[in-house]
Amino acid sequence: MELIDKLALKNGRKLLLFVIDGLGGAPRDGKTELENANTPNLNALAKKSILGLTDPVSTGITPGSGPAHLSLFGYDPIKYEIGRGVLEALGVGMELTERDIAVRGNFATMDEKGIIVDRRAGRIPSEKNKKICDILREHIEKIEDVDIIIHPGKEHRFVVLFRGDGLYPNVLETDPQEEGNPPIECKAITEDSEKTARIVREFIKRAKEVLSLPANMVLLRGFAKYPCLSTMGERFKLSPACIATYPMYKGLAKLVGMEVLKTGDTIYDEAETLKRNWNNFDFFYFHVKKTDSLGEDGNFDGKVKLIEKVDGIIPEVLSLSPDVMVVTGDHSTPAVLKAHSWHPNPFLLFSEFVIPDGIESFTERDCAGGGLGRFPSLDVIPLMLAYGLKLKKYGA
Amino acid sequence: MELIDKLALKNGRKLLLFVIDGLGGAPRDGKTELENANTPNLNALAKKSILGLTDPVSTGITPGSGPAHLSLFGYDPIKYEIGRGVLEALGVGMELTERDIAVRGNFATMDEKGIIVDRRAGRIPSEKNKKICDILREHIEKIEDVDIIIHPGKEHRFVVLFRGDGLYPNVLETDPQEEGNPPIECKAITEDSEKTARIVREFIKRAKEVLSLPANMVLLRGFAKYPCLSTMGERFKLSPACIATYPMYKGLAKLVGMEVLKTGDTIYDEAETLKRNWNNFDFFYFHVKKTDSLGEDGNFDGKVKLIEKVDGIIPEVLSLSPDVMVVTGDHSTPAVLKAHSWHPNPFLLFSEFVIPDGIESFTERDCAGGGLGRFPSLDVIPLMLAYGLKLKKYGA
Repeated sequence: MELIDKLALKNGRKLLLFVIDGLGGAPRDGKTELENANTPNLNALAKKSILGLTDPVSTGITPGSGPAHLSLFGYDPIKYEIGRGVLEALGVGMELTERDIAVRGNFATMDEKGIIVDRRAGRIPSEKNKKICDILREHIEKIEDVDIIIHPGKEHRFVVLFRGDGLYPNVLETDPQEEGNPPIECKAITEDSEKTARIVREFIKRAKEVLSLPANMVLLRGFAKYPCLSTMGERFKLSPACIATYPMYKGLAKLVGMEVLKTGDTIYDEAETLKRNWNNFDFFYFHVKKTDSLGEDGNFDGKVKLIEKVDGIIPEVLSLSPDVMVVTGDHSTPAVLKAHSWHPNPFLLFSEFVIPDGIESFTERDCAGGGLGRFPSLDVIPLMLAYGLKLKKYGA
Repeated sequence: MELIDKLALKNGRKLLLFVIDGLGGAPRDGKTELENANTPNLNALAKKSILGLTDPVSTGITPGSGPAHLSLFGYDPIKYEIGRGVLEALGVGMELTERDIAVRGNFATMDEKGIIVDRRAGRIPSEKNKKICDILREHIEKIEDVDIIIHPGKEHRFVVLFRGDGLYPNVLETDPQEEGNPPIECKAITEDSEKTARIVREFIKRAKEVLSLPANMVLLRGFAKYPCLSTMGERFKLSPACIATYPMYKGLAKLVGMEVLKTGDTIYDEAETLKRNWNNFDFFYFHVKKTDSLGEDGNFDGKVKLIEKVDGIIPEVLSLSPDVMVVTGDHSTPAVLKAHSWHPNPFLLFSEFVIPDGIESFTERDCAGGGLGRFPSLDVIPLMLAYGLKLKKYGA
């Protein structure tokens, strides 16, 4: 990838990375979600494109959304590991800075002897969670010179940012993981993290003072520092924009220097946003979320229908005449597994310079026979840059 | 692979790695051994599976059985090199420890001038070899603090273990390789191996004293230290078992921590052993040896017939309902070459979660168009773990 960074050049050509989250599936009665879907527009596009299969991390690895997206954006997901706390903070839409340690929190129930009897405080309603977070915020704004920034999540979950200088994330997690144990005291694992541990202990002490049953304790894990990445602009000479509806994907896009565009909740809103901003950027990341959610719910037919809906907006997107358009998933989410999976992603690249591989539809099986073969997702940006004539020659 | 080690988890699903040694071939009159064989059961399985081709080491490399198997077991064969002496010792069924230097020996004929006139001592019968080894054992039990452990092989071959502290294998081989030369004196190549060289010289001196014509000399080569590997249990959270008929494969299996199951000489015995032990392990390595031997003999038709025999036991094996079954070779052994070759291995993976690639038979040519493409054998274990739902998600 360092070579790509060196060779990248700016031109007027426009690249569109169209990501259908969790697109790849697995067969139910012999056919996958994509194979069941009626996708005339994607199939027509496939005829003019070159197809393949991508591995987000490596063979057999099931990736989370973080590493899967980083790879698509041209960032090696093994090298740039984004910690749980940071992903959680991005997921609830928090703004992060390089001075932050982000942490996942649970509200929990502790008995008089200091034993955790319910790690989730009976899964308190999200509404109650918000109120508890308000109380915490009111009482704990700052510890020493560190700002404490709290955001509620769903049910018993919340996120806390410790924002200050000299903070490092190498401390013990306080969540004992199993009920019947006391919380673990937060201690530094490496010397650089002594300050973090001290601030965290004080945070927990003060939180305990203002919390009450059933949510009378906090458990903290996933301590992570906001990573400082070179932007896609710096690396690939792109002006990249993100069109996504869910906070985590916007957060990941921001992490690599994309401008996050305001948009509505539907794919039609997103398409509208793409059109409106077409002249202002030369790289667009367009994210469709719900295919993944339906896959995770095990809703095979719902995922099929959504793929058909997405197929319906393809002509509108193509009417913008992108110079390079990729359609792919970040990872697979087969409804039969109700989870992300290791299956490689169907991948399609359209540009005036492709040698179409003669494949006439866009499914996992078709992509397996595609002209690009099977390759790492990390090669997607190099391919898009190449077909966009945005890479100088290497050597003479 | 380190990532795989971190993500592996234990569950009840059963994996079966069915290795047909030297399976891949090359054409005689346009068709390979597999293409000549009538394999209805493997073809039926192929229809429900995903196919591909694997490279044991890398493109163009012809591997020995050691590296080819290590790769299949999930151990990088470049990183973990198993020396010849160790392979030979495993081959004759010796038990090795981490304090051993294992060495391949030949009984040879030397004339009065000290010139080797027959490197194989007229290929003495194996029975005579045993008697000579008995004599050596009787006279040379220990040199300094080093135990000398001798085991006869076939004809003129034997194996000797030097078991003691401070032994390293970097010494000169004593076999001059060509007759008409004297044996080479064993000297240390690196300083750490001075003790080994001294012990070896003393061993040869004492051996000469008790040996007589025609086998009046020993030639030693393939000095190797027994490697200490993390087991498949430690790395992949598997309880692995080996079903093999030849000592070397049992030895390799033991090296990576498999339990070696007692079995008979035929593939039917092996199938019986598999059935009998099915409930006690979650990973089975099933090894068919003779395809390789017939390939090495240049017996094209014999190899074809044996492949058909192996095809015959597939239904019995499938009746156990493995959650993931792989059928492949360790390396190719085309009868037309009478040797191992660099041709990639036909590979088939069956599981309820595969997207079958529509290929209807199991040959080298079919596998070349398979849905898995061409990949390193080192990815076989990650793939099997993934399809067995034995890998946690990477990142969030």
